Amino acid sequence: MSVEHNAPVRLVIVGGVAGGASAATRARRMNEQAEIILFEKDEDVSFANCGLPYHIGEEIKNRDALVVASADFLRRRFQLDVRTREEVVSINREKRCVTVVRHGATSEKDKTYEQPYDKLILAPGASPIVPALPGVDASNVLTLRNLVDMDRIKARVDSGSVRRAVVVGAGYIGLEMVEQLRRREMDVDLIELREQVLPLLDHEMARPIEDALRRNNVGIHLGVGLESIQLDGDRATSVRLSDGTELSTDLVILGIGVRPNSELAKEAGLEIGSTGGITIDEFSRTSDSDIYAVGDASEPVYGPTGTPMRVPLAGPANRSGRLAGEHAVTGQSAAATPVWGTSVVRVFDVSVGMTGLTRASAKRFGKDATSVTIVAKHHAGYFPGAEVMTLKLAFEPATGKVLGAQCVGGEGIDKRIDVIATAMHFGGTVRDLAGLDLAYAPPFGSAKDPVHMAAFAACNALDEIESFRDSDDSLDEVQVVDVRGAGEIEKTPLREASGAIHIPVDELRERLSELDRSKPTVVSCAVGVRGHIAARILRQNGFDVQNLSGGATVRNRCFE
Amino acid sequence: MSVEHNAPVRLVIVGGVAGGASAATRARRMNEQAEIILFEKDEDVSFANCGLPYHIGEEIKNRDALVVASADFLRRRFQLDVRTREEVVSINREKRCVTVVRHGATSEKDKTYEQPYDKLILAPGASPIVPALPGVDASNVLTLRNLVDMDRIKARVDSGSVRRAVVVGAGYIGLEMVEQLRRREMDVDLIELREQVLPLLDHEMARPIEDALRRNNVGIHLGVGLESIQLDGDRATSVRLSDGTELSTDLVILGIGVRPNSELAKEAGLEIGSTGGITIDEFSRTSDSDIYAVGDASEPVYGPTGTPMRVPLAGPANRSGRLAGEHAVTGQSAAATPVWGTSVVRVFDVSVGMTGLTRASAKRFGKDATSVTIVAKHHAGYFPGAEVMTLKLAFEPATGKVLGAQCVGGEGIDKRIDVIATAMHFGGTVRDLAGLDLAYAPPFGSAKDPVHMAAFAACNALDEIESFRDSDDSLDEVQVVDVRGAGEIEKTPLREASGAIHIPVDELRERLSELDRSKPTVVSCAVGVRGHIAARILRQNGFDVQNLSGGATVRNRCFE
Ligand SMILES: Cc1cc2nc3c(=O)[nH]c(=O)nc-3n(C[C@H](O)[C@H](O)[C@H](O)COP(=O)(O)OP(=O)(O)OC[C@H]3O[C@@H](n4cnc5c(N)ncnc54)[C@H](O)[C@@H]3O)c2cc1C
Ligand SMILES: Cc1cc2nc3c(=O)[nH]c(=O)nc-3n(C[C@H](O)[C@H](O)[C@H](O)COP(=O)(O)OP(=O)(O)OC[C@H]3O[C@@H](n4cnc5c(N)ncnc54)[C@H](O)[C@@H]3O)c2cc1C
Ligand SMILES: CC(C)(COP(=O)(O)OP(=O)(O)OC[C@H]1O[C@@H](n2cnc3c(N)ncnc32)[C@H](O)[C@@H]1OP(=O)(O)O)[C@@H](O)C(=O)NCCC(=O)NCCS
Ligand SMILES: CC(C)(COP(=O)(O)OP(=O)(O)OC[C@H]1O[C@@H](n2cnc3c(N)ncnc32)[C@H](O)[C@@H]1OP(=O)(O)O)[C@@H](O)C(=O)NCCC(=O)NCCS
Repeated sequence: MSVEHNAPVRLVIVGGVAGGASAATRARRMNEQAEIILFEKDEDVSFANCGLPYHIGEEIKNRDALVVASADFLRRRFQLDVRTREEVVSINREKRCVTVVRHGATSEKDKTYEQPYDKLILAPGASPIVPALPGVDASNVLTLRNLVDMDRIKARVDSGSVRRAVVVGAGYIGLEMVEQLRRREMDVDLIELREQVLPLLDHEMARPIEDALRRNNVGIHLGVGLESIQLDGDRATSVRLSDGTELSTDLVILGIGVRPNSELAKEAGLEIGSTGGITIDEFSRTSDSDIYAVGDASEPVYGPTGTPMRVPLAGPANRSGRLAGEHAVTGQSAAATPVWGTSVVRVFDVSVGMTGLTRASAKRFGKDATSVTIVAKHHAGYFPGAEVMTLKLAFEPATGKVLGAQCVGGEGIDKRIDVIATAMHFGGTVRDLAGLDLAYAPPFGSAKDPVHMAAFAACNALDEIESFRDSDDSLDEVQVVDVRGAGEIEKTPLREASGAIHIPVDELRERLSELDRSKPTVVSCAVGVRGHIAARILRQNGFDVQNLSGGATVRNRCFE
Repeated sequence: MSVEHNAPVRLVIVGGVAGGASAATRARRMNEQAEIILFEKDEDVSFANCGLPYHIGEEIKNRDALVVASADFLRRRFQLDVRTREEVVSINREKRCVTVVRHGATSEKDKTYEQPYDKLILAPGASPIVPALPGVDASNVLTLRNLVDMDRIKARVDSGSVRRAVVVGAGYIGLEMVEQLRRREMDVDLIELREQVLPLLDHEMARPIEDALRRNNVGIHLGVGLESIQLDGDRATSVRLSDGTELSTDLVILGIGVRPNSELAKEAGLEIGSTGGITIDEFSRTSDSDIYAVGDASEPVYGPTGTPMRVPLAGPANRSGRLAGEHAVTGQSAAATPVWGTSVVRVFDVSVGMTGLTRASAKRFGKDATSVTIVAKHHAGYFPGAEVMTLKLAFEPATGKVLGAQCVGGEGIDKRIDVIATAMHFGGTVRDLAGLDLAYAPPFGSAKDPVHMAAFAACNALDEIESFRDSDDSLDEVQVVDVRGAGEIEKTPLREASGAIHIPVDELRERLSELDRSKPTVVSCAVGVRGHIAARILRQNGFDVQNLSGGATVRNRCFE
């Protein structure tokens, strides 16, 4: 397949950042003859959205570093006709042209014009959701999406006028802002409507993040909403929460999610999907085959369900932009691959990543899912600096097909998530994971990697070698055997398991008579390894036994 | 498939470390009734072979940390009959028993006995190769395989009597020893018969390791052999190399590879494979179905070729031990998956990893392979601390199937190798790699990860969008266009490319007339990105053009 489509096509792109700029550069490389016009309603193109919080916190010192490619650079290197401060306000599909508003126009007659296209790529992204509350328009109630937003927040922080900040929403951006505002030595309160931070994660997997926030003196308010904002002139001075708490503040950051910028498409009669994004096919074409949509505004196929879903992340935006840019100017490209919602965030010294489904989301999507949780070191335990991670793997109980993973800890959690995301791309099972040949030397991993350990446990479940009890299940009706040593149990009692019998694993074989073989039994240890050994002993001695997934470590996170 | 094989089988295991101990513990968990006898000829079982160099260098301070599971622990927790200092010296397959020599025996009649088995697992590992040279028996000419070896080396280092050390062999263990001996402030010379360190890697991918060695004042002697060892009594005082160099020394470490301990199997008439390891099937059974072999002594299936090959690494040993242990006591287990030679090593501040084939080994195996090399940051370039990595991807030119990868740099090289190894497990293509949904946030990666970049480049080759010139190819007969800026070229001239024409990429479109369209043309930049853009411009203007893979950065490593 030789691609030399050097046809003079006119490509118009709406939006000049992750998806739009990626489309434009790839389109140029594929077609020197194309006329490529890139509209960006704001000042800046091609900036690092994902870096914005870190410049506010001055972890990224140099603002220029955030401009990945300036408009001038794109013009020079890629012969792109970059038009900043020009907003596309409507699409005329019959005439194949867009109507443009020039924000910098000095006269009324220059303000609007029509721009014809042969192919159109929509990459307008998403906008921060702003709740309809009195006071949200205050000068110090802000959202973060672009460099202008960033400058506005940073100017306030730099001015020294902010001592207390409130961040609303404990998603990725909210948490990054919390971390970076603490770096600037602000008092920070975090408000989240759900009962946990990072609502996309299973509850107990988000716990270590909450602990990190507490250790870093962040005020956490979970399960409460923002109810009102009190003003002094145009300045917010405090917020009131649904539980009655009042927090005085100098700055409010809203990070409660984004909504896709799909109005333009909608008004042009393009099909919109059930999650609010623009409907696309595997080449990112909308219901009008001359119009493409990419990035946050669109609905790629979500791997775990095989159905379209908005997944507003930079990787998918970049890749879909690249493919659409190619397709628009050549008529062909590789088909897009599904997205799995693979993502990661660092919050102080704890990081958490995920891919695919969680137990909770599997349930929401009506998927039969089972899960195992393991706790392991990120590299050989005997090598200095080993950090502990918790890895939870969700899979189909019937087939072992991997449905998703979550990993929280320090170093190396991103590696395990990427490995599992890669396996999911291929429809891999937990047996595949158990057989992966991963790189091992003491500074990097273990001969049996955490991915293997989780997969071993999952295979044991699949093969009915072991049955796992979910970490947060009731232990009321069962015989609980805690197989840890007495000292450990005293230090960290197993929560919500009052009648637990204590028999250290090494004494279990001789002390079987102390247990009631007729009762359903659950064993537990610190993380599940000794529990596994104990469960195997009991099972082979006629017990109906389960191993508590993740042991006391994970259970206690469920009930903290 | 419910596995409750609680049959009283007698399992004998030869070798008590990675493969053997893993087999024993899994066998116990699978079968409480089994009698499990673990023979280990030396003092210690279940120690961390891979950690040995790091205790010599005192990066791992505590010797006890290297004992992953003591014999007593294995007896107590797993009811294993661990017999240390007992060596299995022969196998009687008809009688189903092994002959054992007790090294600790006090009387001659206690020295030898026969031990019957139902199932036998051979996990005897491998032994360091010692060249047949006069002087190799000297008291300070040492190899490193177990704790006793380690103690011996460390005692010499600790004694203060060693100021100069010579390490022979620049494989993984040799390099780790060099690093750790430098930590102990020794003068270290490294000798390697091949023209490069880490002979398993493509030449230019090993270069950054050589640079790291030089920066750390290691004397490097490549392409030369150890010719003789000069003695003073039983002490080596100097070594002579094949190029005549004489190095005085207080300590010689031999790290020139291992040979499989397959004599026992051979003498028992078991089939031995072409690479010298014991032949096994997918359940690790030898040609005698009651005898299994695992780990360094065996020949698992090597993924890239689909044929048996020795791959003496800890991960495969651990996993094959686990599966064999299960199969031996239950009659079933998952089938082993191929190994890909996935491995990694840290050498000072540079790390290098690989999986599957290199361009060189592909050629050796008669595989048609093409490769691309990219240079990229381990996380977002705008985020502080980004480290540069070089990633070389080998794939089948006809299908795009991934054949292997090598990655050298700082942080994060292991992640990319593991992701690619995972894709290879599934027979993935470069198109799969390009479509992977990997975790991205600025501290962890880039929206287009190095894996994506390499895959994009490979897809471009596959789709004939771009043709790559290998980094080390001759540029004599072609028109070379260096599209970097003048300052860059002056600082880092492109090697072995005398007549290169200099046209910065941004001027290329206007200066096409300076080039000869009738000549095969190669473009080059610093790493290949601008070269890619230039190649696309030239190609669409009728040039027969190739982009120099990895640009000047990688080419210069080839000709340094
Ligand atoms: C603070 C922050 C941190 C983030 N961190 C991460 C992270 O760590 N990892 C991750 O994967 N993702 C992260 N994201 C999300 C990621 O940035 C987005 O998924 C990605 O940028 C989406 O790309 P896009 O091209 O669809 O939209 P954008 O990159 O937002 O680009 C859309 C552009 O279109 C312009 N536009 C909109 N409408 C019009 C119009 N009508 N005419 C002209 N121009 C228009 C907009 O002004 C905007 O500049 C983060 C986002 C933010 C804001
Ligand atoms: C210094 C060093 C560093 C290493 N670093 C790494 C690394 O970073 N990554 C990696 O993947 N691999 C590494 N390896 C390789 C890894 O340790 C081996 O691949 C792995 O240990 C092989 O397992 P095995 O069970 O086959 O052999 P071993 O672990 O060597 O165990 C074999 C045991 O069998 C015993 N034995 C042999 N014959 C008999 C007999 N007849 N009777 C009784 N006992 C017998 C031996 O004494 C030995 O203890 C390293 C090895 C060394 C020596
Ligand atoms: C930077 C941006 C303008 C895209 O520009 P780009 O020129 O396509 O740059 P990329 O780095 O993505 O692509 C590099 C190109 O070089 C190629 N390449 C990379 N290394 C190469 C090498 N060593 N040899 C040959 N080709 C190489 C790649 O294949 C790719 O070309 P292709 O798409 O034609 O295959 C766009 O991604 C952007 O605006 N990013 C910032 C916004 C953003 O992403 N925000 C969210 C995350 S913070
Ligand atoms: C340590 C050694 C004795 C093996 O012992 P082991 O008890 O099998 O220990 P592992 O850590 O490998 O296995 C852990 C077990 O717990 C299970 N497990 C781990 N975490 C679990 C959890 N949270 N819940 C339930 N089960 C869990 C695993 O599935 C595995 O059980 P399985 O094999 O029955 O499936 C052996 O690997 C060894 O000797 N290692 C040192 C030598 C060596 O490997 N050298 C080379 C590298 S330095």
